[in-house]
Amino acid sequence: MQPQALPGFRDFYPADMALRDRIVRTWRRVAARYGFEEYDGPPLEPLELYTAKSGEEIVGQLYSFVDKGGRDVSLRPEMTPTLARMVAARANGLKKPIRWFSIPQLFRYERQQRGRLREHFQLNCDLIGEPGHLADAEIVALAIDAVRAFGLGSADIRVRLSDRRLLTALLEAVGVSPAQVPLVYQVFDKIRRTPEDVSVTRLSGAGLPGPTIDRLLGIVRARTWSELDGLGAGLDRALAQGDPLRRTFEALQALGFGDYLDLDLGIVRGLAYYTGTVFELFDARGELRAISGGGRYDDLLRALGGVDLPALGFGMGDVVLGELLRDRGLAPDSVSSIDVFLAAITQDDLPHLLGLARELRDAGARVEFALAPQAVGKQLKLADARGARLALVVGPDDRGRGEVMLKDLREKTQESIPRDAVRDRVARILGDELSS
Amino acid sequence: MQPQALPGFRDFYPADMALRDRIVRTWRRVAARYGFEEYDGPPLEPLELYTAKSGEEIVGQLYSFVDKGGRDVSLRPEMTPTLARMVAARANGLKKPIRWFSIPQLFRYERQQRGRLREHFQLNCDLIGEPGHLADAEIVALAIDAVRAFGLGSADIRVRLSDRRLLTALLEAVGVSPAQVPLVYQVFDKIRRTPEDVSVTRLSGAGLPGPTIDRLLGIVRARTWSELDGLGAGLDRALAQGDPLRRTFEALQALGFGDYLDLDLGIVRGLAYYTGTVFELFDARGELRAISGGGRYDDLLRALGGVDLPALGFGMGDVVLGELLRDRGLAPDSVSSIDVFLAAITQDDLPHLLGLARELRDAGARVEFALAPQAVGKQLKLADARGARLALVVGPDDRGRGEVMLKDLREKTQESIPRDAVRDRVARILGDELSS
Repeated sequence: MQPQALPGFRDFYPADMALRDRIVRTWRRVAARYGFEEYDGPPLEPLELYTAKSGEEIVGQLYSFVDKGGRDVSLRPEMTPTLARMVAARANGLKKPIRWFSIPQLFRYERQQRGRLREHFQLNCDLIGEPGHLADAEIVALAIDAVRAFGLGSADIRVRLSDRRLLTALLEAVGVSPAQVPLVYQVFDKIRRTPEDVSVTRLSGAGLPGPTIDRLLGIVRARTWSELDGLGAGLDRALAQGDPLRRTFEALQALGFGDYLDLDLGIVRGLAYYTGTVFELFDARGELRAISGGGRYDDLLRALGGVDLPALGFGMGDVVLGELLRDRGLAPDSVSSIDVFLAAITQDDLPHLLGLARELRDAGARVEFALAPQAVGKQLKLADARGARLALVVGPDDRGRGEVMLKDLREKTQESIPRDAVRDRVARILGDELSS
Repeated sequence: MQPQALPGFRDFYPADMALRDRIVRTWRRVAARYGFEEYDGPPLEPLELYTAKSGEEIVGQLYSFVDKGGRDVSLRPEMTPTLARMVAARANGLKKPIRWFSIPQLFRYERQQRGRLREHFQLNCDLIGEPGHLADAEIVALAIDAVRAFGLGSADIRVRLSDRRLLTALLEAVGVSPAQVPLVYQVFDKIRRTPEDVSVTRLSGAGLPGPTIDRLLGIVRARTWSELDGLGAGLDRALAQGDPLRRTFEALQALGFGDYLDLDLGIVRGLAYYTGTVFELFDARGELRAISGGGRYDDLLRALGGVDLPALGFGMGDVVLGELLRDRGLAPDSVSSIDVFLAAITQDDLPHLLGLARELRDAGARVEFALAPQAVGKQLKLADARGARLALVVGPDDRGRGEVMLKDLREKTQESIPRDAVRDRVARILGDELSS
């Protein structure tokens, strides 16, 4: 029986790796444009790093185990606790605001469902040390650009924004008691995928009167500030809690991202530690799970690592984004693995071919040649299979004249050129491809 | 108490990450020039994948455990078993020769010594489907270039090459019995760090007579083919087993790497599965452990995964190479995280600043600005701390004239320029840095 990968783990063959590499490279480039610096931590951490944040009940979802030294450890399910640990260890030496990103592979161990992955790669961007709305705008803008950079626009992706402070104030103003808040959050979280009467029944079952339920539905359906402001009297003081989010919207408009934004107080994000702005990115067609989610968590770093700094950030996984890119035809096409194939006609040509290989590789070209004597026709078949743009054929006759044969496999042309001109000629034809 | 990373695991702060990133990027670029395609597998694999190759005794060195589903699993200690599994699963569909590379993080769990790491990153390059000496030359050349690309030359790094077939034949020819071979391998493996009399005593203790020991010392000390050929009569048939390695040397000379090569039959490489060429890269000063090691393993893929293909490859870790780069002053200097800092004089300037930020980021520049109102002087201090090359100051007076102030923080110059000219001007000053 053939050995297989563990359930929920992916093998990345070169074509799969090409997509993953495009995603990771693009994320790196975009994060750098926002002045974010890359960090990384261990893929394995002490278990207590996660239970300290999320409580013992998180253990059921972790890829945790006891190591040979008797330590409780876990493959990392998220990056924030590692970030908190690293920032706390050097808090005084790090220039604020801290703009850091990481692209870890993350792991979880839930009951296995068919096709459900137990690992994925995730872009994590965090901005630490700034409480104001401009920091919120920066993080949301970076999340948008991390998708926009693949060629997707406001017709493809939407950002739904809410603010914990605003939502809490509104729920209180319409008469939701603290004990009812968790249920309202649950209903809001599912409201886009639930028939209205089911939502109403659930809210009603929690003891909420009809007029309050109507106002809650108004709140969760508002998609613009004017819709929210029009919800009626008695909410003015609560709506004032929306000022930071309004200013975040304004800054995002000045950054040119106004087209991407929807107000959506139904964006709850389960995690208890968010303290302000929360947001999620979705594909505009609504076919996929969230592409990204994040928010402000001003109290978390102190709770985790003893350093009291406001912070916010987001995560964006490679799986949903990869599906979106494939759906939209933006995944890499079949990949060419070389630029230039070198073919030798006789064995005496081989040392000359090897010298050419060295020269062209040093110039940045991707070069391959046949590793055993073969007819030239067979060698050129390998060149085709690799997607080579050019082939150089080295033979005794051409060599006698100090030349080699250059074949342009895309343009279907060929000509003999001086051996000494090969490097410049290849560089000119390949142009920008050389520096990749 | 502050939480800490597990013993033997590294945190990568941005400066550490800059070195790791330089190493990984350079490896990727060089591997691509040899037509190698990147693949990856899971960091966690079934334990049997490793015991099938190395026997149960390997378990003592593995980061292995029983997962929540009762499976024996291990964090990957090496890449070859995963490679064998992946190639076997698609053996018929993959065009030969297969030229694949990967840069996995690898793990081991040995008794912890102070400062001994339990994880590292390793470049793995493997060439599958070619039995001939040109494949050997390609793999050795790629290993050299994977170090040379950092600016190191033949004065910095040496490649020591041997061949299992040649060594086996020579040992047999000088009268070493099969039962004595493992001890001779052990002595050879340590001979550079062992006083000669200690080596002689060990060989003698195994029952080898003085003349045989003299010939063994001659074999292990030979650094050129002529030294080896001059070792005396009776070795001709054994030396004929050196033909593949001689041809590998010739091909490497034609590739321009002759200066890097030393014959060294003392390169044993402990692993039992090598069948031909074996080699290691060292720093020329001999101060560090091996930078890289590899060789031909023609029988291993069949033994592991049921696919019978000749193969060879090498591994190169990030730790020794990183030490070498730091020693030679080739590690990245203190890193600048942005190109352009934007400063606003008044709050009314902010929307204009944000528009500039978007425009310059879209052009590829790394841009940051203060996230809360501050005096311009304080804002420019952050620009300095980030290593910004340029600052743009947006203020009411300049704005009234449709201008902004451009400061070149490296050249210590400043001038007002038209707002509409900012993008082109910044692109011209940053030049090549923009595309990174």
